[in-house]
Amino acid sequence: MTTEMHSTSDRDAFSRFYGVIPAGGTGTRLWPLSRAAAPKFLHDLTGSGSTLIRATYDRLCPLAGDRVMVVTGTLHRRAVKQQLPEISNDNLVLELEPKDSAAAIGLAAAILHRRDPDIIMGSFAADQVITPVEVFQDAVREAILTAARGYIVTIGIQPTHPSTGFGYIRAGEGLDIDGAPNARAVAEFVEKPSEDVARGYLRDGSFSWNAGMFVAPVSLMLKHLEANEPELHAGLTEIAEAWDTARRREVVRRIWPTLPKTAIDYAVAEPAAAAGDVAMIPGAFTWDDVGDFAAIGRLNPAAENTELRVMGEGARVYSENASGIVVSDTKRVIALIGIEDVVIVDTPDALLVTTKEHAQEVKKAVEHLKASGDTDVL
Amino acid sequence: MTTEMHSTSDRDAFSRFYGVIPAGGTGTRLWPLSRAAAPKFLHDLTGSGSTLIRATYDRLCPLAGDRVMVVTGTLHRRAVKQQLPEISNDNLVLELEPKDSAAAIGLAAAILHRRDPDIIMGSFAADQVITPVEVFQDAVREAILTAARGYIVTIGIQPTHPSTGFGYIRAGEGLDIDGAPNARAVAEFVEKPSEDVARGYLRDGSFSWNAGMFVAPVSLMLKHLEANEPELHAGLTEIAEAWDTARRREVVRRIWPTLPKTAIDYAVAEPAAAAGDVAMIPGAFTWDDVGDFAAIGRLNPAAENTELRVMGEGARVYSENASGIVVSDTKRVIALIGIEDVVIVDTPDALLVTTKEHAQEVKKAVEHLKASGDTDVL
Repeated sequence: MTTEMHSTSDRDAFSRFYGVIPAGGTGTRLWPLSRAAAPKFLHDLTGSGSTLIRATYDRLCPLAGDRVMVVTGTLHRRAVKQQLPEISNDNLVLELEPKDSAAAIGLAAAILHRRDPDIIMGSFAADQVITPVEVFQDAVREAILTAARGYIVTIGIQPTHPSTGFGYIRAGEGLDIDGAPNARAVAEFVEKPSEDVARGYLRDGSFSWNAGMFVAPVSLMLKHLEANEPELHAGLTEIAEAWDTARRREVVRRIWPTLPKTAIDYAVAEPAAAAGDVAMIPGAFTWDDVGDFAAIGRLNPAAENTELRVMGEGARVYSENASGIVVSDTKRVIALIGIEDVVIVDTPDALLVTTKEHAQEVKKAVEHLKASGDTDVL
Repeated sequence: MTTEMHSTSDRDAFSRFYGVIPAGGTGTRLWPLSRAAAPKFLHDLTGSGSTLIRATYDRLCPLAGDRVMVVTGTLHRRAVKQQLPEISNDNLVLELEPKDSAAAIGLAAAILHRRDPDIIMGSFAADQVITPVEVFQDAVREAILTAARGYIVTIGIQPTHPSTGFGYIRAGEGLDIDGAPNARAVAEFVEKPSEDVARGYLRDGSFSWNAGMFVAPVSLMLKHLEANEPELHAGLTEIAEAWDTARRREVVRRIWPTLPKTAIDYAVAEPAAAAGDVAMIPGAFTWDDVGDFAAIGRLNPAAENTELRVMGEGARVYSENASGIVVSDTKRVIALIGIEDVVIVDTPDALLVTTKEHAQEVKKAVEHLKASGDTDVL
């Protein structure tokens, strides 16, 4: 709808847009539901009927059509194709091994730049939950128009509480960009703060959460990557040159394992902000990165008259004076009696029992299991 | 050892002794470990390496040798024979359908009486935990000698707390019986009391718990059964007459389904006590009827430096700040994080999560599942 009101040159910006979905990370805080072999993005964690990656793809469709690239691990090729049957092989970029976000997003930028140097890419992680999608899409449209003016544009999430689990974006002055009335300069990115500092950010009002979403000309992304991570840039460029040729396999096998592991924040976003090249669109939508089982509780409405949220097709749960979350990935009968704020995740080979309060510590259990050799269930 | 000191006529009493083990009841408060198809007595609930029925049989062996009869449901024939491979078919009495304790114990009494009217039977449920066994055996020896003088002799358990879950026995005057210095008359059996009343019993000192154990001449048992439940007595007598003949099957099928369901306490013990025919030997041993999962916690020592008791062969449990009981009947990894006094029972088709405090309510869950048609897991 908003699109209708933009000018011809705006439409040009929109036609240059290409969605990129980095689909990585095992989501260890969601073990045993989320696994190395079945990570977070392959699950329907909201009870919507769609997996997170499918919902992410669908959210980009009105903006990008079929111009959406997914970057994921070779292990997930089959599952991703099953979730996104319409994706072409050109748009499915498989990582030989995990190399962190700078390599994943940088590879997408380099391949897209090789195909068309005018592309404006928009990178959105595969495992986030956003609602309403129309508000998100309007923000991305503003971001595309801002990016077309030569910015790396992040979308800042309005904080709802003084979270210590996210990085923050400090907004600077407003930018005067046609069709992007909410665009502002980014003064700086700041690391995950202490709770006191986070409270200050909330009071201040110019801070938003960094959800890792950004929209930018691929050329500008690569320029900053080259300046900050020249080795990574050189490697990705060489891979991108070979990507759409018969040499892809040979070049990837030779170079990918040698690439440095670093986050896109350090490799591009923070230095670009320091150089004044980063802008921000505030996102007035609800956003959740489904970081732990407490988030799953928030995202799944409880059935009427009960404090117990049950997820899982065909779940057979009997409860009496119980509250919390049950994720049933089996057809077993689960009986809960007299237990409060519990988190139960029941899968065929592993069972987690904890509380909402301890949901963040699930990661430790996974680390322990890894150390003790119980890798069959990770 | 005690036996050596008894006289010839005492030995005669001992040679008349026949152990009877009623093995019934599904132990619904121990669901989903205990099931209709795999009741409490078929499990090793103490971590001893023996199932409860095996331990019960072994406890009677020094007293009865191979003169031990088991009364159980046809459903459990195979499992009982597996647990007690030495049992002869003559000593395995199968109930066509459950008919409560008066029919089960009465049938054993009637069959034994038919085979030898001088038998003194000792009935001990298959699902109790007793230690030390020598103290139990000494009490039974006193009970046998007292029974030989024409008493139905119960063994009273010294109460350790004002339980509202057991019936009580009020002891009367001491009896003067050779070789049974602790024998006393029983003034009355009293029903499960309120907590206040139970506290009074403890202070009074003449009350003990009724563990349902008794030793009695089969003729005396049958006499009281005939007086109080003539229909039941007549039916059991007809079945017993046919039992060791080719007519057993036909007679059982015709009569068993028509028998009234009642407890041995009402059919024999209470009226016999009123008639002055019941005596009591105090049992100075530790006794547990493993009534719920809290009992399983008591009976299984925790591993060093942990408040978490884990039962189950090959259990794979990871815990962090967790206490309570885990019963693992699968090979699944179970991770517990930050949860106190929890009770987790993990079986292939059903999972129970509750707390020690709510352990008694498990029965309700089973009733609910039955009502809702989830009988596949009961």
